[in-house]
Amino acid sequence: MVHTLPLRVPLVDLGDSTALLTDRYELTMLQAALRSGTAERRSVFEVFARHLPAGRRYGVVAGTGRLLDAIEAFRFDAAELEFLTANGIVDQPTAQWLERYRFSGNIWGYAEGDCYFPESPILVVEGTFAEAVLLETLALSILNHDCAVASAASRMVHAAHDRPIIEMGSRRTHESAAVASARAAYIAGFATTSNLEAGRLYGVPTAGTSAHSFTLLHDSERHAFEAQLASVGDGTTLLVDTYDVERAVRTAVELAGPGLGAVRIDSGDLGVVARRVREQLDALGARDTRIVVTGDLDEYGIAALGAAPVDGYGVGTSLVTGSGAPTASLVYKLVARADGPDDGAPMRPVAKRSVGKPSRGGRKTAVRRIDGHGTAHAETVSTGEPTPGPRDRVLQVPLVAGGEIVGRETLRDARERHRRAVAELPPTALQLSRGEPALPTEFVDGGPRH
Amino acid sequence: MVHTLPLRVPLVDLGDSTALLTDRYELTMLQAALRSGTAERRSVFEVFARHLPAGRRYGVVAGTGRLLDAIEAFRFDAAELEFLTANGIVDQPTAQWLERYRFSGNIWGYAEGDCYFPESPILVVEGTFAEAVLLETLALSILNHDCAVASAASRMVHAAHDRPIIEMGSRRTHESAAVASARAAYIAGFATTSNLEAGRLYGVPTAGTSAHSFTLLHDSERHAFEAQLASVGDGTTLLVDTYDVERAVRTAVELAGPGLGAVRIDSGDLGVVARRVREQLDALGARDTRIVVTGDLDEYGIAALGAAPVDGYGVGTSLVTGSGAPTASLVYKLVARADGPDDGAPMRPVAKRSVGKPSRGGRKTAVRRIDGHGTAHAETVSTGEPTPGPRDRVLQVPLVAGGEIVGRETLRDARERHRRAVAELPPTALQLSRGEPALPTEFVDGGPRH
Repeated sequence: MVHTLPLRVPLVDLGDSTALLTDRYELTMLQAALRSGTAERRSVFEVFARHLPAGRRYGVVAGTGRLLDAIEAFRFDAAELEFLTANGIVDQPTAQWLERYRFSGNIWGYAEGDCYFPESPILVVEGTFAEAVLLETLALSILNHDCAVASAASRMVHAAHDRPIIEMGSRRTHESAAVASARAAYIAGFATTSNLEAGRLYGVPTAGTSAHSFTLLHDSERHAFEAQLASVGDGTTLLVDTYDVERAVRTAVELAGPGLGAVRIDSGDLGVVARRVREQLDALGARDTRIVVTGDLDEYGIAALGAAPVDGYGVGTSLVTGSGAPTASLVYKLVARADGPDDGAPMRPVAKRSVGKPSRGGRKTAVRRIDGHGTAHAETVSTGEPTPGPRDRVLQVPLVAGGEIVGRETLRDARERHRRAVAELPPTALQLSRGEPALPTEFVDGGPRH
Repeated sequence: MVHTLPLRVPLVDLGDSTALLTDRYELTMLQAALRSGTAERRSVFEVFARHLPAGRRYGVVAGTGRLLDAIEAFRFDAAELEFLTANGIVDQPTAQWLERYRFSGNIWGYAEGDCYFPESPILVVEGTFAEAVLLETLALSILNHDCAVASAASRMVHAAHDRPIIEMGSRRTHESAAVASARAAYIAGFATTSNLEAGRLYGVPTAGTSAHSFTLLHDSERHAFEAQLASVGDGTTLLVDTYDVERAVRTAVELAGPGLGAVRIDSGDLGVVARRVREQLDALGARDTRIVVTGDLDEYGIAALGAAPVDGYGVGTSLVTGSGAPTASLVYKLVARADGPDDGAPMRPVAKRSVGKPSRGGRKTAVRRIDGHGTAHAETVSTGEPTPGPRDRVLQVPLVAGGEIVGRETLRDARERHRRAVAELPPTALQLSRGEPALPTEFVDGGPRH
C-alpha cells in the first residue's frame, strides 16, 4: 500500500498519542481476532531475553517509567483512526473498537534498575488478547533500547569505580533516543549528561563546557580561555588539546590560577597525556584541578585508565550504541491464554514449537535467591506462585492494575535500586571479560496458580 | 547540577521545539562568545566522516529532510528559557539572545539519498558562530542515525537484487528512532515498513499480517488461518512455522486455495525450508504463492539466499542497528571563521592540531567525477569553487538560504536519487566483502573563494 507522501512533516511532535508507534501486524491480528471471536480471550504475554549479549554477565532493566507513560498515551484519536481507515489498514468495526481502546489489564515487571538474566520474565502483560497484543511493539521498542543502553552503562560505571562519568553521546544516536539514553545511563550510575532535554524531561543533571570550535573561533587559545573563564568562572573545565597540550595547561593555570576546576583531554594516548598533565598541574600548584578524559571510551578503555591520574570520564558513542549490543534482544511472547472468551475460562500455557527459538509456556514468576552473606546465587523462574526464602527477593512488582498505572517512581529510586542490585551480585558479575551470566537461571514447574 | 526530578513526564511530545535536543556545551560556548565579542564572527562548520565503517564501500546520505524540519522548529520558547535560566545553564543576556534566535544563515549539503565517502563534506553550515554552533548536536544526531541506517539498508537492497524487503525493526530500537529508520530504509530502496507512524508521517508504504501469538491464540492453526483469511482475504501472508511447516502449508493451501498470497517462514534454515515449501506449494498447485523469509537476516544472510526460492525478505534488527555500524561517525567541525565581527572581515581556515584526529581547514566543495561510460571514478573535495567536467556532478545543493528552507523535496525524490547514485558507482561498490571505499577521495587546494 502506498500512502500519500507529504512534503513536510513535524519532526518531533508525534502528537499526544503513541498508538502508531506500532507494527501494522498488531492491527491486522486484532481485526482478524475480533472477527473470529477470539479477541476477548484472556491472555498473558511476557517480555524476556533468550540470552544476554555475548559474554555479558547481567542485564539492566530500564525504560519501565517511559513505558508506563507511553501506555497511558496509547490511544486512537481521530488523527490515528483517519490514517488507519483511509489507508485500508483496518475496517470500520476495528476502528470503532480502537476508538474505545484503553488498556484495562494488569502489568507486572522487574522494577526499573534491577538486574536480569536469560529468560528472566521482566514484564508480564495480562489482559484480553486484543488489548495486550497491541502493546507489543511499543513495549519492545522502549525496553530493548533502554535496557541495552543501561546494561552497557552499568559496566562502564563499575569499570570507572568511583570516578564520575558524563554521558555525552547525543550526537551519535537519534535525537529522541539520545534523551532516553541519558535517562538510562543515569539509572545505571552515570553522574551527568550533556543532553539538555534529558535535564528538562527527567531531571538528569547536565554538564558541558566547550569544544575545539570555541578555541578555533578566537584569535588565540589564550583569548578563548579568557572568554570561558570570564563567562563561567574558574571552576570550569578547559579543553587543552586543540594545539599543544603542555602550552595549553600552562596558559590555563596562568589565567585561572590554582582554583581551575578541570582540564579536558580529548585525543592522544589518554593515559600517557593524563600523567604528563597531572605532573604539570601539580608543578604549577594546581593540585586540585581535575583531569577529565574523553574520546572513544568504552568500558575497556575506562578500565585501562584505572591507574592513570584521571578524575572523570566522558563517554559518548559506546554508551548510546550499547557498547557492541545496541538492542537487548527482548521478545514479547504469548505464554498463556484462556480456552474461551469468559473470564472464568481455564488458562492454557502456549508456546510455539519452531526450530531454534523455543519458548516456555505459562505465566512466570521470578525470585532472586540470596545466600546468608547477602549475595545472590540464582534466578528462579517458576510457572507457579513465587516461593521466596527469608532473604530472597520476589522480582516482579505491580506496574499497572486494572488499567491504572500503579508503578510510577522517581528516577532516583531506580538509580538507587540499581546500585543495590549490582552490589548483591557475586563478584564475577563485574568482570569485563566474556563469560557466563553471573547467575544461573533455574526453572521450577509450579502448581496451578490461583 | 541537579535539576528537580519529575515523577511523570510526557514520553513522545517534546513540545514544538527541538532546541533542547542539544548538548549543554553549545550554550556554554554561546554565552562565553557573546561575552567575549566573538559570537557574531562569520563561521563555517562542516559535517563529514573521517572514514566509513570498517570495510564499507560507500555511505548513504539520509536525514536531510528531517533535519530541515528540525531546524525550522529550533527555537527557544518560554518553556525552554525557563528551564535554562532556572537551572543556571545560561545567564540573562544569553537567554535574551536565545529568545530571538532563528537560524539566519546558509546551509548546503549532499542531496538526500546521494552516496558519500570519507571526508565528503555532506553538510556545510554558514552563519555567525553563535547561530551555527547551536545546531551541532541536532544535526549530528539526525544525520548520524539516519545515514547509518540508510547505509546498511542500501547494502541489503542490493544483496536482495530485485526481491522486495520489508523493514520490520521497530521493536529493536527506540520508538522514535524506529520511525526514522523506516524512512531511511525506504530512501535506500526497501519496499515497505511495518511501522505505522512512518506510514502516517512520511507516507512510507506499510505492511504486516500476523505473528505466532495469533496462531497460539486460536484452538488450532487451522482456526487461526481461517480467521486471518476471513478478515483480510486470500491475498494475505500466512505464518507457517508455529508448529510443523509442512502441515501448515498443506492447511494454508487447503483453506485459501492456489490464490494464497504468500507464506512466511521465520525460523530454521531458511534456504532449506524455503526449497521444501516451494516444492510443496508447487505440488499443491499454488505456483503463484510467494515465500517470504524473516528472522535475523542481514545483508549477508540475504545474499546467501540468492539462489533459494524466496520472493521477499523481512529485516529487523540488523537494519535499525546499522548492521554492525549503528552510528555513521559524522563530525561537525569549524573549518573557517572571520577574523572580526564585520560581514566584510576576511575568512580564515581553521583546524585543530590534535593527535589522531586531524581536520582540514577551509570551506569545501565536492564533485563526483564521472567517466565516459557514466561511471564514477573519484570524489574531488576542494577548498575552492567546484570545477566539474561535462559529466561530473557538483554534489552540494542549497538547503537553507538566508534562514529560509529551500531544500525540501519528497521522500520519493530521495529514493529515486539513491537508486541513480548507486547505479553510477563502479561495480566494486556492491561487493559485500570488506574493502576500500568504492571511490577515492581526492583533495584539491582551490584559490580564494568569491
